[in-house]
Amino acid sequence: MAREGFVTAITRQSDDFPAWYNDVVLKAELASYSPVRGCMVIRPYGYAIWESMRDELDRHIKATGHSNVYFPLFVPRSLLEKEAEHVEGFNPQVAWVTHAGGKELDEWLAIRPTSEAIIAETIKDWIQSYRDLPLLMNLWNNVVRWELRTRLFLRTSEFLWQEAHTFHATEQEAREEVDLGLEIYRKVSEEWLAIPVITGRKSEGEKFPGAVYTYSIEAMMRDRKALQAGTSHYLGTNFAQAAGITFLDRDNQRRHPHGTSWGFSTRMVGATIMAHGDDSGLVLPPKVAPVQVVVVPIFRSEADRSAVADAIERFELALRSTPEGREVRLEVDWREESPGFKYNHWELRGVPFRIEVGPRDVAAGQGTLVRRVDRSKEAVPLDRLAAELPLRLTGYQQELFQRALDFREANSHQVDDYESFKRVNEEQGGFLWAHWCGSAECEAQVNQETGATIRNIPFDSAAEAGRCIVDGRPSDRRVVFARAY
Amino acid sequence: MAREGFVTAITRQSDDFPAWYNDVVLKAELASYSPVRGCMVIRPYGYAIWESMRDELDRHIKATGHSNVYFPLFVPRSLLEKEAEHVEGFNPQVAWVTHAGGKELDEWLAIRPTSEAIIAETIKDWIQSYRDLPLLMNLWNNVVRWELRTRLFLRTSEFLWQEAHTFHATEQEAREEVDLGLEIYRKVSEEWLAIPVITGRKSEGEKFPGAVYTYSIEAMMRDRKALQAGTSHYLGTNFAQAAGITFLDRDNQRRHPHGTSWGFSTRMVGATIMAHGDDSGLVLPPKVAPVQVVVVPIFRSEADRSAVADAIERFELALRSTPEGREVRLEVDWREESPGFKYNHWELRGVPFRIEVGPRDVAAGQGTLVRRVDRSKEAVPLDRLAAELPLRLTGYQQELFQRALDFREANSHQVDDYESFKRVNEEQGGFLWAHWCGSAECEAQVNQETGATIRNIPFDSAAEAGRCIVDGRPSDRRVVFARAY
Repeated sequence: MAREGFVTAITRQSDDFPAWYNDVVLKAELASYSPVRGCMVIRPYGYAIWESMRDELDRHIKATGHSNVYFPLFVPRSLLEKEAEHVEGFNPQVAWVTHAGGKELDEWLAIRPTSEAIIAETIKDWIQSYRDLPLLMNLWNNVVRWELRTRLFLRTSEFLWQEAHTFHATEQEAREEVDLGLEIYRKVSEEWLAIPVITGRKSEGEKFPGAVYTYSIEAMMRDRKALQAGTSHYLGTNFAQAAGITFLDRDNQRRHPHGTSWGFSTRMVGATIMAHGDDSGLVLPPKVAPVQVVVVPIFRSEADRSAVADAIERFELALRSTPEGREVRLEVDWREESPGFKYNHWELRGVPFRIEVGPRDVAAGQGTLVRRVDRSKEAVPLDRLAAELPLRLTGYQQELFQRALDFREANSHQVDDYESFKRVNEEQGGFLWAHWCGSAECEAQVNQETGATIRNIPFDSAAEAGRCIVDGRPSDRRVVFARAY
Repeated sequence: MAREGFVTAITRQSDDFPAWYNDVVLKAELASYSPVRGCMVIRPYGYAIWESMRDELDRHIKATGHSNVYFPLFVPRSLLEKEAEHVEGFNPQVAWVTHAGGKELDEWLAIRPTSEAIIAETIKDWIQSYRDLPLLMNLWNNVVRWELRTRLFLRTSEFLWQEAHTFHATEQEAREEVDLGLEIYRKVSEEWLAIPVITGRKSEGEKFPGAVYTYSIEAMMRDRKALQAGTSHYLGTNFAQAAGITFLDRDNQRRHPHGTSWGFSTRMVGATIMAHGDDSGLVLPPKVAPVQVVVVPIFRSEADRSAVADAIERFELALRSTPEGREVRLEVDWREESPGFKYNHWELRGVPFRIEVGPRDVAAGQGTLVRRVDRSKEAVPLDRLAAELPLRLTGYQQELFQRALDFREANSHQVDDYESFKRVNEEQGGFLWAHWCGSAECEAQVNQETGATIRNIPFDSAAEAGRCIVDGRPSDRRVVFARAY
């Protein structure tokens, strides 16, 4: 009987990137479509990847003094509408509950598109004095933003995320918190997901509805498009004013607290797929890989099977004899399938290392180590491999980061005039570092004419005198343009 | 300025149990009301308790081969209505999304009250052959059941929970899974939350809408009322048939898989409060306590402060020198408040052990250990305390379990006729072990006339010939009646 897993032929990445992406998500069983328009089902392998990044993010969030809390799924219409820019930004995407418990509701309830409004209203009573500040909260939940065109993980009407919400006595402290949120995202992206990111500030047109400013991390996918991987917002006193939150400051004055919020979602599973994957499927960084090492036994006779099993058992025992070795997520694939089927299965799923152990290997006391990213093969004595495996995984993690960084650098271009911009954007894509005068008009024109948007104004963009590629007005640093997800 | 935390006067438990409960939840800052009717906000301390039981449950669920997954928040009306009993049971409590993305929806979407219907529809394609079974899934999510009368944690329109959903090739295997789910709940309740439970089968009238049968664990609260603490359902092929799921079995026959589902929710935070708490507030089992030990330094002069600080530092170093000691969640309360304020603060929050360290203690090389549950005081050399603390916490956990068990036994009664039943139920409450003929009529009559319901038909109820307390028909074992949450 044909096994589904064997049909792993996926579209080539270079032929059709979006089709490749969908194939990988569906055939590696990360997620699937659901009977609800725009909503996805996250399957075990995809959810395990999400859990890994979620837990790592949670560790950072807690280590920096934030507490997890939960706020209601619903936001009464009147609350959502209190902050003017906020409602304007989100209203078109809201899903509304109008009936419940067998009758029509007096007031419609929004399914939260984000929780600023409900939080500001709720915590009014919690903040009386400067001694109640800062208030550092984090929520893990689901939010709904009705999307017309959806893509698994990248843009779904419902998604899972973390949203931090904090309130501070001073603007300075709130600004530092915005920096902290962004730095946590940078760390998780670069050190856990092996995805290099550009940190910077969003343009006015691209900031969060209701924010004073928005910072983002931006990553390059393997089709050279950009993906916004996390955002951190300084909200000023906007939501506090709208909800009427004040506190008694040290000098006995009543003031509005300064707010921040920052979020990171299941979209990052999509980013991890697109930042590292290749024609054979996923390429997972070890930190986030549900299975880091798969051992494939190769045998024909029962005698061979037994010798191979013994060698693998000794290898596992040796691996588990050290604390680092015990942490390695290893699976031995004893399924009754051909080795080829298994190679295919685990390559599609992006498992970093495969170790093949056959009778000849056993005789030589070795195994064949195959690395997913470059398919390099190496015969290594099994006892040495057991000892070296943790360090090799660490090295592989760093290599994937460097590979993604090299790819980004190779696909980043400085362009100085609009014609070059259009040509490079069309022919090569990637990140275009160009001068921009700061006007919303030029930004909109570029977007309309080229499909590229300003990803952010990078913090490490060096001061440099130049002229806006559109209207020639002066600019003092380059910004990053790209087509984006 | 008055600090909110100092006003910890709470209603006495014996005076008004429901008022005591609300006081504890609000003043220990476990949760608060929200601007949305029937929905609560879970605050840091309450969420940390939830995280502890959630993580423990998650470990059991994964260790028994289940994978975490995610399914959509929405269930299209037509799917919810496919299983007849199911829709009848849940329809009155459903919240409906009718508008989204700026327009009216063609089909109303239910906010999931539970996920059987959406899951059955989705996984049709995943189950082709017996080799795709069993399918063992678990979801951590939020569900909505519109409630008229709500109580923080115990009954809220939105709550957080875990719902496991499994599919099996045979009835036998599915029944074993139902047992497994219940056993996991028993373990977490008894060994983590220190709440003894009675395992048994629900009556027909009390089973899950759409199930063939439902098992439950039932716990006694300190007002002697019962609380259903977790349920595990055998669904037969009901949902599989409704959704049209079939698989090719070993014998080449197409069959419907057998389903189970089991759930455990934030209501268990409420159970933990009510199973152990006393007039001073929470009494937390160490396993679930966000803070297990609080050290309160006592000093007047700077010199004393410094000596006390040194002693506490040495104590902490000694504690952290062992692996078990490093796991202890300890806080030293250096806030600028009186010792009395701090005692009050931490007692309300149920912290198992308080260690007071003052100048005289330092001189004697000791600290004063105060146990929350019985307020016993003991002077213990600090170095010995550091060495013994982990074991003492383990002992305290067991004591709380035994205390709850003793309380339940002291408030369990065998009654043999309806008059005694009514009198004991009225005057003493508690668990009433009585004979019941098995008819829905007698069950309904007892409920209507006494407020008590059949909690479950305990698995360990001994075979015993008797007569139904209502109609005198024969019965072969006692069931447990009680007023319940």
